[in-house]
Amino acid sequence: MSQYTAFTEQDALAYVQEKSGLFTADEPLNCYEFGDGNLNMVFRISNHTGTSVILKQALPYARCVGESWPLTLDRARIEAQALIAHSKVCPEHTVKVLDYNPDLALILLEDLGDMQILRGAQNQAKQFDLLGEHVADYLAKTAFYYSDFYLDAQEKKALVAQFINPELCQITEDLFFSDPYRKHERNNYPAQLQPLVLELWQDDALKTAVAQLKAKFLSSPQSLLHGDMHSGSIFVDAQQTKMIDPEFAFFGPIGFDLGSFIGNLLLNYCAQNGRIQDENERHTMQAHLLHTLHTTVSEFARQFTQLASQHTQDVNFQEPAYISAFIQSVIKDAVGYCATELIRRTIGLAHVADIDTIADESARLDVQQQTINLGRQLIKSADDIHDAQSLKAVLSSLLN
Amino acid sequence: MSQYTAFTEQDALAYVQEKSGLFTADEPLNCYEFGDGNLNMVFRISNHTGTSVILKQALPYARCVGESWPLTLDRARIEAQALIAHSKVCPEHTVKVLDYNPDLALILLEDLGDMQILRGAQNQAKQFDLLGEHVADYLAKTAFYYSDFYLDAQEKKALVAQFINPELCQITEDLFFSDPYRKHERNNYPAQLQPLVLELWQDDALKTAVAQLKAKFLSSPQSLLHGDMHSGSIFVDAQQTKMIDPEFAFFGPIGFDLGSFIGNLLLNYCAQNGRIQDENERHTMQAHLLHTLHTTVSEFARQFTQLASQHTQDVNFQEPAYISAFIQSVIKDAVGYCATELIRRTIGLAHVADIDTIADESARLDVQQQTINLGRQLIKSADDIHDAQSLKAVLSSLLN
Repeated sequence: MSQYTAFTEQDALAYVQEKSGLFTADEPLNCYEFGDGNLNMVFRISNHTGTSVILKQALPYARCVGESWPLTLDRARIEAQALIAHSKVCPEHTVKVLDYNPDLALILLEDLGDMQILRGAQNQAKQFDLLGEHVADYLAKTAFYYSDFYLDAQEKKALVAQFINPELCQITEDLFFSDPYRKHERNNYPAQLQPLVLELWQDDALKTAVAQLKAKFLSSPQSLLHGDMHSGSIFVDAQQTKMIDPEFAFFGPIGFDLGSFIGNLLLNYCAQNGRIQDENERHTMQAHLLHTLHTTVSEFARQFTQLASQHTQDVNFQEPAYISAFIQSVIKDAVGYCATELIRRTIGLAHVADIDTIADESARLDVQQQTINLGRQLIKSADDIHDAQSLKAVLSSLLN
Repeated sequence: MSQYTAFTEQDALAYVQEKSGLFTADEPLNCYEFGDGNLNMVFRISNHTGTSVILKQALPYARCVGESWPLTLDRARIEAQALIAHSKVCPEHTVKVLDYNPDLALILLEDLGDMQILRGAQNQAKQFDLLGEHVADYLAKTAFYYSDFYLDAQEKKALVAQFINPELCQITEDLFFSDPYRKHERNNYPAQLQPLVLELWQDDALKTAVAQLKAKFLSSPQSLLHGDMHSGSIFVDAQQTKMIDPEFAFFGPIGFDLGSFIGNLLLNYCAQNGRIQDENERHTMQAHLLHTLHTTVSEFARQFTQLASQHTQDVNFQEPAYISAFIQSVIKDAVGYCATELIRRTIGLAHVADIDTIADESARLDVQQQTINLGRQLIKSADDIHDAQSLKAVLSSLLN
């Protein structure tokens, strides 16, 4: 790692001109940095004909905190290798890696051009009819082809070791499962929520369920997860959906990715109560979000079942009753992880713009109360949920 | 590994004289090889005053099959490191490693002298009053101190990677979970059992339960297991109990070790129906075996609860309700793994002397039918079993 230097725009431009093979040596290029995350620099380099590329560099510290919070550059390897692994089985919905440079922690990526980050688009009340189907396709394929259903045990164990990602997993372990359920300096919520938060901290049944979800997150390497499947990790337009940024990738419980995604849909659902004034317009957007959620869960189940029925290599796992029980347990897990996403995005350190950019304080507080209550109720309903249909029934009763 | 050579008795003697620090350079030593396993050479070296030591060498192939079945020598590393890891938390019940030589795949071990292998002793109807308590102590301590309750996640993940043991796990995956449930050339049972075996192969509920146990074996790294906790891996006498031979060690579901051990107790229980003619004598031995089984389960639960209540580091896992639910799930898993041990030792490749040395064929067949039926019934009762008490109730009804 001795060769590492943090890139300026000039460095990025020179690197891409030399290495990408997309540009001639003397053509004028444009470069700007637009990383809005905390851990990386992201450069977009383009020429005047519109050819463009993304260069992402991991920083050795968290950008928002500065050099006092060191982070290993190995996460660039994890991200590049996870994207390559997921592209092998689902190129349709995975951003393409053009090159990876371990010494400089650089990933050269296809530029997704005019596609939009899902979170921003949903906050503008945009709808994407294919989103649920596409995400389900990505989740089912990446989950199945890196699971014990498909991989030989020796090959899978080698991959589990390759993707051991303790530093970034630790962030999730703390921010998802620990902090929001006790007094912690990293928590971040308005004083008006304190009574509701105290009530949650005293809810032993909830804390036991959260402990079980954390235990699975720590010790259930079912498949190679994206690890950070929120609405900020998804590029969309009317035709396409592309997953980006899997630097939290590791072998974990399949329900975690599915739960994170549907958790973000429900965060946006609740946020729209404070975002869209017109009742019809709001109901239309919320109905779209719920439809997307149900499509994701039902299509994930349908497609995983199909893949497992046709392509399972392990003789023990070919039993239809086993496949069905497995998917039910994934959906149950997903409901639990979805609930923890709702809670941690309201009480914990990292919030979502969906809620935080609601200008009216009282409307914002209403939304925050709703996400906390919805999370608490959902986690306790998880035992009753085993498919898209039962999830729909529970959500109908909780959201009305 | 270029320095590796398979040791003769002369090599073993010379090595120990030079390296052990137990003997002077010129004193006459005695050496004999007595390995009865398939994968290793085991030498005992002693002087005339009774000082003695064990030297174990892994062979690069399975001894019974010859050089055509290659095996990695890395299992000597796994065995040495697992013994050292378990000795750190439970020296009372772990054989002591004096030295480990990776190039020669050699482990120098304390000689356990006049202690006996449990299987042989039980086949002589010997009873060991402290056995259940000792095994529970070993299982609770090794399970707790290498679990997510105690270890920091980063430290645990490094250990999980260190103990990835695909080659030996594969043997278990095949012999425990796959072969016995379908036609396979490695299976080994008398023709008279064919109707019962066919019935088992058509039992879909059983096969689904076995698939779930295999999935947990593959992808549930709860703690650092012994991995081969049968009665041949335990040295006993009236005062002491020592675990040996953890070359199958890996991070897996805690219930696997507990289940393997109680499965072996039940194999011996059934075998005694064909071994001990005198009814009183037989009942006494069988009552002792059941008492040992119940002590193991109840003491394991009691001690794990105590360790978890007092020493759990992870804030999420300190909830008493979570600790209790965790132990219940371990016991349920153990019942399942116990059942697969009963079945695989009867239908699969590797049998136990407890049954195979019953001279009378008809008595032996009766025992084999009993172990298969007991395994089938137990696996389906696992959902009703969550503690020593409920296990006792189920076993009472199945064994009478």
